[in-house]
Amino acid sequence: MRSVRIGIIGLGNMGTAHAQYISEGKVLGAELVAVCDINKERLEWARHHFEEGVQCFEAVEDLLAFDGLDAVMICTLHYTHPDYAIKAFSHGLHVLIEKPAGVYTKQVREMNEAARKSGLVFGIMYNQRTNPLYVKLREMVTSGELGEIRRTNWIITDWYRSQSYYDSGDWRATWSGEGGGVLLNQCPHQLDLWQWVIGMMPKRVRSFCSFGKYRDIEVEDEVTAYLEYENGATGVFITSIAEAPGTNRLEVIGDKGKVVVENDQINFWQLQMSESEFNRVNTEKFARPKSREVPLTVPKEESGHHVITQNWIEAMTKGTPLIAPGEEGINGLTLSNAMYLSTWTEDWVQLPIDDDIYYEQLQKKIAQSTLA
Amino acid sequence: MRSVRIGIIGLGNMGTAHAQYISEGKVLGAELVAVCDINKERLEWARHHFEEGVQCFEAVEDLLAFDGLDAVMICTLHYTHPDYAIKAFSHGLHVLIEKPAGVYTKQVREMNEAARKSGLVFGIMYNQRTNPLYVKLREMVTSGELGEIRRTNWIITDWYRSQSYYDSGDWRATWSGEGGGVLLNQCPHQLDLWQWVIGMMPKRVRSFCSFGKYRDIEVEDEVTAYLEYENGATGVFITSIAEAPGTNRLEVIGDKGKVVVENDQINFWQLQMSESEFNRVNTEKFARPKSREVPLTVPKEESGHHVITQNWIEAMTKGTPLIAPGEEGINGLTLSNAMYLSTWTEDWVQLPIDDDIYYEQLQKKIAQSTLA
Repeated sequence: MRSVRIGIIGLGNMGTAHAQYISEGKVLGAELVAVCDINKERLEWARHHFEEGVQCFEAVEDLLAFDGLDAVMICTLHYTHPDYAIKAFSHGLHVLIEKPAGVYTKQVREMNEAARKSGLVFGIMYNQRTNPLYVKLREMVTSGELGEIRRTNWIITDWYRSQSYYDSGDWRATWSGEGGGVLLNQCPHQLDLWQWVIGMMPKRVRSFCSFGKYRDIEVEDEVTAYLEYENGATGVFITSIAEAPGTNRLEVIGDKGKVVVENDQINFWQLQMSESEFNRVNTEKFARPKSREVPLTVPKEESGHHVITQNWIEAMTKGTPLIAPGEEGINGLTLSNAMYLSTWTEDWVQLPIDDDIYYEQLQKKIAQSTLA
Repeated sequence: MRSVRIGIIGLGNMGTAHAQYISEGKVLGAELVAVCDINKERLEWARHHFEEGVQCFEAVEDLLAFDGLDAVMICTLHYTHPDYAIKAFSHGLHVLIEKPAGVYTKQVREMNEAARKSGLVFGIMYNQRTNPLYVKLREMVTSGELGEIRRTNWIITDWYRSQSYYDSGDWRATWSGEGGGVLLNQCPHQLDLWQWVIGMMPKRVRSFCSFGKYRDIEVEDEVTAYLEYENGATGVFITSIAEAPGTNRLEVIGDKGKVVVENDQINFWQLQMSESEFNRVNTEKFARPKSREVPLTVPKEESGHHVITQNWIEAMTKGTPLIAPGEEGINGLTLSNAMYLSTWTEDWVQLPIDDDIYYEQLQKKIAQSTLA
């Protein structure tokens, strides 16, 4: 079988990394045939760095029109992902986008619709979905081992960024350039994992974003969000770029036990009898359900980007199910869009959010920006 | 010097325990001379159990009128603390109340005013203020070692209570009987410690209480509260009576480091340079402030109730400052009152809360109750 011929759009940090490992043959059945970047220096570097056969384009349109391609990876600025993906589908190309799926759900929904109509393979680079810790936790939820989910709490404050980071590019941390702060740039993996491991999206969100509290930026640098789910479960998500040393601790409570993922470990306390059952049968005033800590071993394997790329290739060549279907990129984005909207409107946001209202509010923020 | 002659009002679990250790001579300079309970069986038990000289009263008024008393400990139902305390002050008696200070701030403010006017010694049984873990944390905040406080997160879900607990008394978990659920009955220590260790009360609160979600009760069994402070700090407080095994984890982030109190341990990560200073001088895009974990040793000593009682006695006899002044009982109560009020009004609550509005809302809940 012929290798899948890959084009990479955008040679920033991520695009370069993907181009590199593919050109080194680390993805079976894939071949790097084209790259694209508007930055002439990056392109010149690519011309010398990759094999002679690799086509180098300055314009995305030219790469997409190149007829030696089967698939593209889109690694450009957040805002452009949906537009380029839609164009790629119209050229009959399979697509893998970097996260986040986009900046606002309206454009991402259009992308998903285009993907669906095209019948092509559409993936998103949620490589943390291969992290054995979260894979294990998801299995425990899916299998029913944890029981009905009641509460989650994710404190993810180890995304330290100093002012010098924000000053390193004037598109950074602006509504027009990136469309958000820590939620959109640092947290997409956690926001995706959060809904993926428990298999639920909330029904409503109340959120408290601080904009430019610890840094001279217009977007958010600290967030506390409270979520409610259809089954009665609640969730809290806390993030910050100004804490050191940060915390990365996910606690998930089910009717049958508790899991904590922290410090690259997963800890599980299993109840002898589910809490709801215990509550039903217990007659002693101060008795508590008995639990034991169950040792869990999870593989130490790397949760690399190439695993997602390999899976995407196999979805094309063998029909393997995608680990991270592109259409699911809207879930994490919906969470962050809802968190902004709740802060801006000082109110609950019901899910699914109203795409148009969010889009309008975002345009307002861009228009009101004193930057760029 | 003559011993301080103590009367104990209410011989429930706590009143009995206090009477016991005082009568056993465990509080230097104190003597149990009277007890009081409306329950005749309890009183009969007391008559046989304590020394002959101990007076046994059925009516609080009779105990208060007894002229052989210097001080009283009030260990009755929550609602009655302020009323009895005010009466005790009017009899010239020093007072130590059990927590919570009361059920609503309006009555507690009146009690505090009466205490102030009386000039008598007024304490509250916040014995957790002697827990070496929180004493240490408070010292670190007070001394400036942690730097300006930025964020706190307390997950205190190890207050497991089954339905059989709630069914054990028909006053339990009712607005009229106890005036609240987990916040008022199980969490007073944590709510006090929270404001005591960081030395700050919030300026506003947004809270989400679930009433009777996991138990057949009318008051709250699960709470998530979000707080904002004048200095920009944020805080989250999460509690539940339906989780097993529960969590008790307090995280406090300052400009100079992070402290986590969990599993009877206190862990401290100290920054080499404060975060704000690092942020000002750093020029590398992805650099983070350096930190090291500092081993802390805290004494393992018991944080017993008798320590608070002893301190209260010494405040009377030697002028020793109180560990837990009674007037400070209003702080933790204000937090829980604000958490209810925010949930009921679906809105922010500014602090200090409006005592009258809270009182009216509580009366409404009592009037609407289908119980009692």
